[in-house]
Amino acid sequence: MAAALALSEGVRGTTSPNPPVGAVIVDVGGEVVGRGATQPPGGPHAEVMALREAGERARGGTAYVTLEPCGHQGRTPPCAQTLRDAGVAAVRYAVTDPNPPAAGGAEVLRAAGVDVVGGLLADEVAGGPLRAWLHSVRTGRPHVTWKYAATLDGRVAAADRTSRWISGPESRAEVHRIRAAADAVVAGTGTVLVDDAWLTVRGADGDLADRQPLRVVVGAREIPGTARVLDDAAPTLQLHTHDPREVLAALAERGVVDVLLEGGPTLAGAFAGAGMIDRIVGYVAPALLGAGPTALGPAGVSTITEAHRWRVEGVTMSGDDVRITAVPAAGEGGP
Amino acid sequence: MAAALALSEGVRGTTSPNPPVGAVIVDVGGEVVGRGATQPPGGPHAEVMALREAGERARGGTAYVTLEPCGHQGRTPPCAQTLRDAGVAAVRYAVTDPNPPAAGGAEVLRAAGVDVVGGLLADEVAGGPLRAWLHSVRTGRPHVTWKYAATLDGRVAAADRTSRWISGPESRAEVHRIRAAADAVVAGTGTVLVDDAWLTVRGADGDLADRQPLRVVVGAREIPGTARVLDDAAPTLQLHTHDPREVLAALAERGVVDVLLEGGPTLAGAFAGAGMIDRIVGYVAPALLGAGPTALGPAGVSTITEAHRWRVEGVTMSGDDVRITAVPAAGEGGP
Ligand SMILES: NC(=O)c1ccc[n+]([C@@H]2O[C@H](COP(=O)([O-])OP(=O)(O)OC[C@H]3O[C@@H](n4cnc5c(N)ncnc54)[C@H](OP(=O)(O)O)[C@@H]3O)[C@@H](O)[C@H]2O)c1
Ligand SMILES: NC(=O)c1ccc[n+]([C@@H]2O[C@H](COP(=O)([O-])OP(=O)(O)OC[C@H]3O[C@@H](n4cnc5c(N)ncnc54)[C@H](OP(=O)(O)O)[C@@H]3O)[C@@H](O)[C@H]2O)c1
Repeated sequence: MAAALALSEGVRGTTSPNPPVGAVIVDVGGEVVGRGATQPPGGPHAEVMALREAGERARGGTAYVTLEPCGHQGRTPPCAQTLRDAGVAAVRYAVTDPNPPAAGGAEVLRAAGVDVVGGLLADEVAGGPLRAWLHSVRTGRPHVTWKYAATLDGRVAAADRTSRWISGPESRAEVHRIRAAADAVVAGTGTVLVDDAWLTVRGADGDLADRQPLRVVVGAREIPGTARVLDDAAPTLQLHTHDPREVLAALAERGVVDVLLEGGPTLAGAFAGAGMIDRIVGYVAPALLGAGPTALGPAGVSTITEAHRWRVEGVTMSGDDVRITAVPAAGEGGP
Repeated sequence: MAAALALSEGVRGTTSPNPPVGAVIVDVGGEVVGRGATQPPGGPHAEVMALREAGERARGGTAYVTLEPCGHQGRTPPCAQTLRDAGVAAVRYAVTDPNPPAAGGAEVLRAAGVDVVGGLLADEVAGGPLRAWLHSVRTGRPHVTWKYAATLDGRVAAADRTSRWISGPESRAEVHRIRAAADAVVAGTGTVLVDDAWLTVRGADGDLADRQPLRVVVGAREIPGTARVLDDAAPTLQLHTHDPREVLAALAERGVVDVLLEGGPTLAGAFAGAGMIDRIVGYVAPALLGAGPTALGPAGVSTITEAHRWRVEGVTMSGDDVRITAVPAAGEGGP
């Protein structure tokens, strides 16, 4: 299942609105004979990819899949049926499919005499590659990760608005990896106008990655045609609204499941105030500025008892920076 | 030596301007027969305390001391001589005494035929209990630890200036332990007037500790006689200056070696700008405010290249908060 999980990680950002799923087929003798991951929308599901590689050796073998195989006819035939037809004797999956029309694959397989067990590495998968998709199925809106890079004193830029660089090279490289896994990268007009932010995925050498998430600029001001965000490195969408709900609805309509909110403070404050941030990834650089914009602008809080409370999910070093990830504390967070 | 280090930790905050030192005597058979730590100024040094407990059993034994035994006559006779007179056969110490008049104890002992080795746990001792004292010997000014408690977005209070509580109970309890180890606790008039800060050491039950550090209020505004900082729980000094150098000079004159700077942002910014912060202990609470004062006020930085750069020394969880400690990056930091 760990191998299937890794395969699914590899296709994050390419499958929405479908979930990034990984599958591994092990033959009767215990040898891995097939590996697969979800192909872009309209393409084959993970199980089909893995079965193709396994061929006849799937017969009598075991399939490991990160999500319960679908039991319904979609753009592709149901995977439960395909697994059964391939003669797979056992299926192990991580997360149960919460999507009513797709669910039921486990039952279909069991009815056909296949030995089915779910729940393997369920937390790792549900909190990892399937997190955004599960969230969007549950809530009907995309999952939002807010990323910021600030100093110890919470500044995201100096008094003169310069911000290159607050965080170190390891953190910046990691942000590109997070971007690569997202469906859309969102920033306000302020960030685009002040920083001429490019919002693209680049490698260590600065080269553009093959696949780029949708770039989304939120706000009314016009972006000059010379702005980097309007070049042809990736598609760009400007949304002339200040309402996070409208932003997420417009993105959901376009099949976006996983959103990376890159700020700045004004837009991030609006999202936090609306309860529309599902995860925080903060890079805290060991530096002090003492002036300049802080990471978060007005979020509807006027007194300490109204503070938005979060729960730290993990703390690690990222080069010289401290990386803090957090999720809403129990009882917090909007729809 | 680990036992000697622990003994020295226990007397931090009670020995200045002398260093908090720990000593353990082990007899010929390898049994611990004496333990001691530096007594308040004018009282016996750690070695003398440990020798008193050991009595005749010190003869032929080994002394473990966190600092090279002093070789000069001060308010007390030199410890090197006392160890020799007690018939100790071997001395192990952690840190070499950098203080010219006191130094030379190792040589005195060697000349008397005692087997002397230095450097055991030297980094742990020099970075721990002896850190502030070594710093003050080297620079001639007290060591300053800046402590703050902020949200993920760097706020130390909400828009309406309420700040109870930003950090959790574990962090607040830890701050009391840090205060207990300091010689002086320093805050600006702003913090005293807005928060009616008490700046005392309390236990979990809220009871005042027996020993209290000096409370220091920096600024020109008058503090009303009803302010908690002016009660008789501890001595309080108001310094009518805005210059961190003057603050530290006034404290050094009073024998203060270890200063805990508790803010607020204006005073902390002045200290940071003057290069007068030697260590940062930040409690980052997983909360968002989006408004309110940030941890650090103006520190003389106007553009990103002028940022004060630090090095993260440690990151740990403190209850639900993230505790980050940092020291000036190589090449940074004032005199
Ligand atoms: N270190 C980091 O992680 C990071 C990341 C991003 C930005 N930054 C820094 O942040 C600074 C820019 O800050 P910013 O706050 O101006 O950036 P911003 O949040 O990107 O843009 C603010 C603009 O977005 C529009 N907007 C969208 N939704 C809004 C809402 N709900 N309420 C109000 N306005 C809304 C408004 O522009 P219209 O008038 O056009 O509608 C507003 O002026 C720059 O200095 C940049 O370097 C740092
Ligand atoms: N969470 C935390 O860790 C924490 C800790 C402390 C404070 N706080 C918060 O911080 C807020 C108070 O902020 P603050 O900045 O007013 O507090 P502050 O730094 O304690 O006090 C500022 C005052 O100190 C004096 N001062 C001393 N040195 C100065 C200098 N070099 N430059 C300018 N003034 C100097 C000035 O008063 P005079 O006019 O009297 O000279 C100034 O108004 C409160 O809301 C409090 O809750 C939070």
